[in-house]
Amino acid sequence: MALRLTVLDKIIAVFKKHGAETIDTPIFERKEVLTGKYGEDSKLIYDLKDQGGEILSLRYDLTVPFARYLAMGKISSIKRYHIAKVYRRDNPSTTRGRYREFYQCDFDIAGQYDPMIPDAECIRIISEALQSLDVGPYTIRLNHRLLLDGIFAVCGVPSNKFRAVCSAIDKLDKNSWSEVKKEIIEEKGLDESSTDKIGIYVSRFGGIELISELRKDSELMKYESATKGLESMELLYKYCNILQVTDKVTFDLSLARGLDYYTGVIFEAILIGDDVGVGSVAGGGRYDNLVGMFDSKHKSIPCVGLSLGVERIFNVLETKLNKEGVKTRTTEVEVFVATAQKNLHEERMKLLSILWDAGVKAEQSYKRNVKLLAQLQYCEESGIPLAIIIGEGELARGEVTLRDVVSRTEISIPRAHLIEEIRKRL
Amino acid sequence: MALRLTVLDKIIAVFKKHGAETIDTPIFERKEVLTGKYGEDSKLIYDLKDQGGEILSLRYDLTVPFARYLAMGKISSIKRYHIAKVYRRDNPSTTRGRYREFYQCDFDIAGQYDPMIPDAECIRIISEALQSLDVGPYTIRLNHRLLLDGIFAVCGVPSNKFRAVCSAIDKLDKNSWSEVKKEIIEEKGLDESSTDKIGIYVSRFGGIELISELRKDSELMKYESATKGLESMELLYKYCNILQVTDKVTFDLSLARGLDYYTGVIFEAILIGDDVGVGSVAGGGRYDNLVGMFDSKHKSIPCVGLSLGVERIFNVLETKLNKEGVKTRTTEVEVFVATAQKNLHEERMKLLSILWDAGVKAEQSYKRNVKLLAQLQYCEESGIPLAIIIGEGELARGEVTLRDVVSRTEISIPRAHLIEEIRKRL
Repeated sequence: MALRLTVLDKIIAVFKKHGAETIDTPIFERKEVLTGKYGEDSKLIYDLKDQGGEILSLRYDLTVPFARYLAMGKISSIKRYHIAKVYRRDNPSTTRGRYREFYQCDFDIAGQYDPMIPDAECIRIISEALQSLDVGPYTIRLNHRLLLDGIFAVCGVPSNKFRAVCSAIDKLDKNSWSEVKKEIIEEKGLDESSTDKIGIYVSRFGGIELISELRKDSELMKYESATKGLESMELLYKYCNILQVTDKVTFDLSLARGLDYYTGVIFEAILIGDDVGVGSVAGGGRYDNLVGMFDSKHKSIPCVGLSLGVERIFNVLETKLNKEGVKTRTTEVEVFVATAQKNLHEERMKLLSILWDAGVKAEQSYKRNVKLLAQLQYCEESGIPLAIIIGEGELARGEVTLRDVVSRTEISIPRAHLIEEIRKRL
Repeated sequence: MALRLTVLDKIIAVFKKHGAETIDTPIFERKEVLTGKYGEDSKLIYDLKDQGGEILSLRYDLTVPFARYLAMGKISSIKRYHIAKVYRRDNPSTTRGRYREFYQCDFDIAGQYDPMIPDAECIRIISEALQSLDVGPYTIRLNHRLLLDGIFAVCGVPSNKFRAVCSAIDKLDKNSWSEVKKEIIEEKGLDESSTDKIGIYVSRFGGIELISELRKDSELMKYESATKGLESMELLYKYCNILQVTDKVTFDLSLARGLDYYTGVIFEAILIGDDVGVGSVAGGGRYDNLVGMFDSKHKSIPCVGLSLGVERIFNVLETKLNKEGVKTRTTEVEVFVATAQKNLHEERMKLLSILWDAGVKAEQSYKRNVKLLAQLQYCEESGIPLAIIIGEGELARGEVTLRDVVSRTEISIPRAHLIEEIRKRL
């Protein structure tokens, strides 16, 4: 938890830097709110027992509850972050950071705005967050759902199979092309020549130059969704340049994202030279139609957002810290109050009361009599920087012994100067 | 959420000052873990649907999961805080701060320690927390389960009815004695003369003098549990005195606490002159046998802990802020970047990139062209202290206009000095 809270605090600082407020939504949603939003993964939703009242399920992500909240609250614009647990009846895999209960860390911008301005800021936020977490080199893969639609069209995919092919392509980060090809042909029912054409497109990636290369593809350019997608990508690149993140992004035609609700730019951050094998550590995209699904008049609110894969980031950082032999402190205690003789526990408590009044983080042993060595050993093991030692001599002289735990040096100081001296050393 | 997070941050600061670490436990527990721990309130437990696998329920409080965690992890001592949501299938009452999903804020000390040293620290922590939250005057009511047992015994209550009578007495903060008396006689099956004797005892409250008064009650002093309870109360008062909280406590024989698992000192903080009618804002006590219920060898670990009723505190503070007309900011934005002419949104983004790099919390409108007045109005409404305005003139001169939003004063400064000037003003 100590490591986790450090990570979350850094992420919250980035979200706040970009002016986000935070909201909370309940852990349960009415079952029908979640139904039909997650494609084939809907089987992983946890349902509550029917004990009378509403039929409820545990939230599966934070995006659908956010969209439901916007529609119910008639909120037409907001920039919010939400860090909370979500629930999936999955087969846990601790090494890959997959759990049944896990944190999601979302930032979303909702509102009718001008193209790509909020989208580019999302890319910048992912970059700032990963930078501040010091997870090592990364790239943010970019693509556009409209461009993918154009590609599927030019390859002869019927439009009712676009999303199904998308969810197959999405597995390219884990599976080989031949496996994905097999799924597209056998499960999605596409013919081999179309599939091979898709295979050539989705093998392409690079930088902004890919935009002009694709523009030369006259067959593809016949499809309006492809030209629109490329226009958007061009504007996004322009803004990424202004926001100084161009060197952090890759235009990657194999990026598809599994969820059905994306309608525009999609993105995903991966660690480079990642030996833990965690996969993506952030993802997101534009979803302009989701809020409308919860509005009685189908009035929609355009949204773009990102989600940081903090469970994976926890794993990466934990592995890193373990390798470096760094021990994370679980408390923030600054001063331990110890006694050198028996039956002085009331004197310790008097001192503690003074320290707490002064706002010093301080503790003692809850036993009346403990060996001094045991008390000092505890300080060293817990990484507490200072110890105050009182014995009968100190009490008689109105002094305390202040010990620097790391250097093991001690000085005597008058009790009246204690707080001042502690503040100087912390 | 902005108000809630301020409250929780203050509470966490107090918990950390006392050297606590934090842990997390899952939101669901196996159903059998929760069964039989909450007396008649067990009907309020939310169960998950049986979708295969374990039979699960949502946690009802944080104490039982904590005890389960200690037993399973073979942890013999820990001082931890845990702030998380718990779930009850109750009839919500927003005015009384009762919800189906709500925060609990717990601090517990587990371990084999000397009498009353951790217990007294819990009282001090409640006092520090309520003080730092500025909720107004309060008192912490104290009592001891052993003393109550002695009182019940001397009043002729059979020992198998102690806990049932306890849970009736616990309602004295909401109901009159005549209602409670009726419940004890009609539902718990006690005779009227015993009940009347109880009524006289539980009407007594005061300070440390109550201990010596009760010691003169020779009938009561025949019961070992009563003498033991009074001994404990005496020691607790001694330590409360050392920890400077004697003026914050009341020895109150009507305090019983509803839960079955308490075994020693019990306490409950109430607001004095509370016109919102929130009832108790903190509670807790010693529960030495709960961990043993989860250990295969029934090895127990003594525990004492407290829970802050933050939902009630949120209500009290919200009412107070509303009365005072204080508006809570929902974001922490320091600088808004505005443009005075059309088509300068890229210039805004360039400036934002510089501000974010410097760690300044900054935002802009996501629309390319917005009226300057609308931008400045937004700053005033959102409480953003500074606005940067750029127009073609400023750009040509390599300057920006920096506006103090409250005083509406503006100065021109060279771009190179912008960050420095902003830091000076924040």
